[in-house]
Amino acid sequence: MPEIDDLIDRYIAAWNETDEARRRDLVARTFAPEAHYIDPMMQATGLAEIAAMIRAVQQRFPDHRFRRIGKSDAHNDRARFSWELASEGGPVLAGGTDFAVVADGRFRAVTGFLDRLPATQP
Amino acid sequence: MPEIDDLIDRYIAAWNETDEARRRDLVARTFAPEAHYIDPMMQATGLAEIAAMIRAVQQRFPDHRFRRIGKSDAHNDRARFSWELASEGGPVLAGGTDFAVVADGRFRAVTGFLDRLPATQP
Repeated sequence: MPEIDDLIDRYIAAWNETDEARRRDLVARTFAPEAHYIDPMMQATGLAEIAAMIRAVQQRFPDHRFRRIGKSDAHNDRARFSWELASEGGPVLAGGTDFAVVADGRFRAVTGFLDRLPATQP
Repeated sequence: MPEIDDLIDRYIAAWNETDEARRRDLVARTFAPEAHYIDPMMQATGLAEIAAMIRAVQQRFPDHRFRRIGKSDAHNDRARFSWELASEGGPVLAGGTDFAVVADGRFRAVTGFLDRLPATQP
């Protein structure tokens, strides 16, 4: 499913984008305006809250980047995919699996679960 | 989280209950009245449709039972857990991971994904 993979790539790119304007743009092209994100540590509703949440995570884990692992799995308007957070060339800090509901080519809801807990807290 | 594990156990029991009245009762104690279920092969909305969907699966895979595998993982009002479908003492026919939204102690929405595809079609 190339479309869902493009959407997931955009989602990961948004989590990695430290430029404010480019991140806002990626978030707007990834999430529906009223989208909701929730995981064990945080949640956000709407594009502004989601962009701010991503910035907070970047500030907490500087020099780390998210990357997709494995294949995406999608059916109907649902998708799941896994990711890792790691420093460049360094060990994996955390990993998880996200479940998304898609509407009109964007995420309407994302629920994140942790598969590997953050090993160290910077 | 004992409450979520009880709920998941009830859910698995409903999938395995072939007595019509007992299955309806289990479904009513597992799902909210307006609950929605969706996986790659089927979907259902509301208790009657969900109970009928389960019966159809039982008829398609007679002498097979669902069982939980691994640990459940829950946060906020979300949960994920995995299962297998197998005949007694026989090989695993299929396996999957379900993602649920909980409200008032029952599933309001369940999205199923397949981790192991049905190996044989009876």
